[in-house]
Amino acid sequence: MNKPIGVIDSGVGGLTVAKQMIRQLPNEEIYYVGDTLRCPYGSRSYDEIRQFTWEMTYYLLDKDIKMLVIACNTATSIVLQEMREKLPIPVIGVVHPGARAAIKLTKNNRIGVIGTNATIHSHAYKHALKRINRTVEIIELACPEFAGIVESGRYTLPDIFDHIHEALAPLKESSIDTLILGCTHYPLLSSIIQEVIGSQIKLISSGDQTALEVSAILDQQNLLSTKKSVSHSFFTTGSPVAFRKIASSIFQEPLEHIKQIKL
Amino acid sequence: MNKPIGVIDSGVGGLTVAKQMIRQLPNEEIYYVGDTLRCPYGSRSYDEIRQFTWEMTYYLLDKDIKMLVIACNTATSIVLQEMREKLPIPVIGVVHPGARAAIKLTKNNRIGVIGTNATIHSHAYKHALKRINRTVEIIELACPEFAGIVESGRYTLPDIFDHIHEALAPLKESSIDTLILGCTHYPLLSSIIQEVIGSQIKLISSGDQTALEVSAILDQQNLLSTKKSVSHSFFTTGSPVAFRKIASSIFQEPLEHIKQIKL
Repeated sequence: MNKPIGVIDSGVGGLTVAKQMIRQLPNEEIYYVGDTLRCPYGSRSYDEIRQFTWEMTYYLLDKDIKMLVIACNTATSIVLQEMREKLPIPVIGVVHPGARAAIKLTKNNRIGVIGTNATIHSHAYKHALKRINRTVEIIELACPEFAGIVESGRYTLPDIFDHIHEALAPLKESSIDTLILGCTHYPLLSSIIQEVIGSQIKLISSGDQTALEVSAILDQQNLLSTKKSVSHSFFTTGSPVAFRKIASSIFQEPLEHIKQIKL
Repeated sequence: MNKPIGVIDSGVGGLTVAKQMIRQLPNEEIYYVGDTLRCPYGSRSYDEIRQFTWEMTYYLLDKDIKMLVIACNTATSIVLQEMREKLPIPVIGVVHPGARAAIKLTKNNRIGVIGTNATIHSHAYKHALKRINRTVEIIELACPEFAGIVESGRYTLPDIFDHIHEALAPLKESSIDTLILGCTHYPLLSSIIQEVIGSQIKLISSGDQTALEVSAILDQQNLLSTKKSVSHSFFTTGSPVAFRKIASSIFQEPLEHIKQIKL
């Protein structure tokens, strides 16, 4: 079915998911909305997160998408279930694919999760993990400043290391063997996080895994595209110049078709 | 939904898939049918493969399964599409999960596939891979004797190495970077295959990946079980003693509830 897939995120973090989707599903057309103007969502109220997420979704439903990917852990944690119930198209979030990948990888059944305040306090990962395997132990830690660091583009500076070191200190004695990066911004900090947390702990970025599940669901529901040439579109509520800069660094190539929108 | 998941295979190879399902989905009950008596399917006619696969499926439909996993590449290659169209429950094969994992892993877009005669001649992997990404190059090679070696239990003998070395020789100059083990028996030969083919080539066993997709589809369709204690059942058309022996070596623990059946 040759309609686009909609991808929504609070800002640029979801581009790590979109990038994997474009790589693993080259026949699919992506329409991406990043709510950069109101990002980060992680410390906003549930009502605001709900409202903003629906606004992005309505924008894309008007463009006749065949599937919606909520590429933001905060929005997934708060709104996924409601969207699944209300929308006539498949809705995929990033929490469950990350949870499944962690369950596949862990050997000692002790899994850590880091995310925004809203994600961690919703216990969305804990519920997703426990629903699949109630014997796993889960250590949750909110890292409220990480997403802002990425959105600001400051994530290559040396002083970030100390900040991350301090933020992750509570995980040091937890004996987890797997750590879920429960925010799509965090893969951009993954080399620092890996250095801080130690090489023996496996990091899970939900991007890879979500793209794979998108592919599986499209296949299962006979929705795969047969397009021979595709063109992706990126919509941002903030400055297209700033969006283009971070997006091009994530994609490692210049991004076209970036348009500023008002929701 | 607390009903069992049905898993069917021509023999014991699909146990590598069932094992991963049990590990990744500990709340789910598995009903496994292995048609050991008529195994291997790989060199049988399409009509026979179709008939045998439907016979196993009817056996499990009577037991009110909520999902069917065709844990046999040969049967998937020939019958998956028809089953998806005719059955009211989700049907998952092993070909597409393996294809997706290969597309995720390859860097040079050159993917090898080994399988039975029937799997290779059906070009099921080629179609699955090309459907997702038409730029990948695929090298297919039938290895008709590998499944029989595994079913016979002779796969630890030293003379197997020379046989596998000879069988895989055509892949040597193919410059693939990823090799799909397109038969659920082959993971039991994977250390020999890796040694023969070289450590730089990534091997894909569909078992891990299929279990993950089963989890994703159950979740998407609200079919996950909430059972607190589960008990799996294994049905074989051949000798339960021989089945138990190989099964226990695959599971690395003794398997209970093995019953001989007639289809």
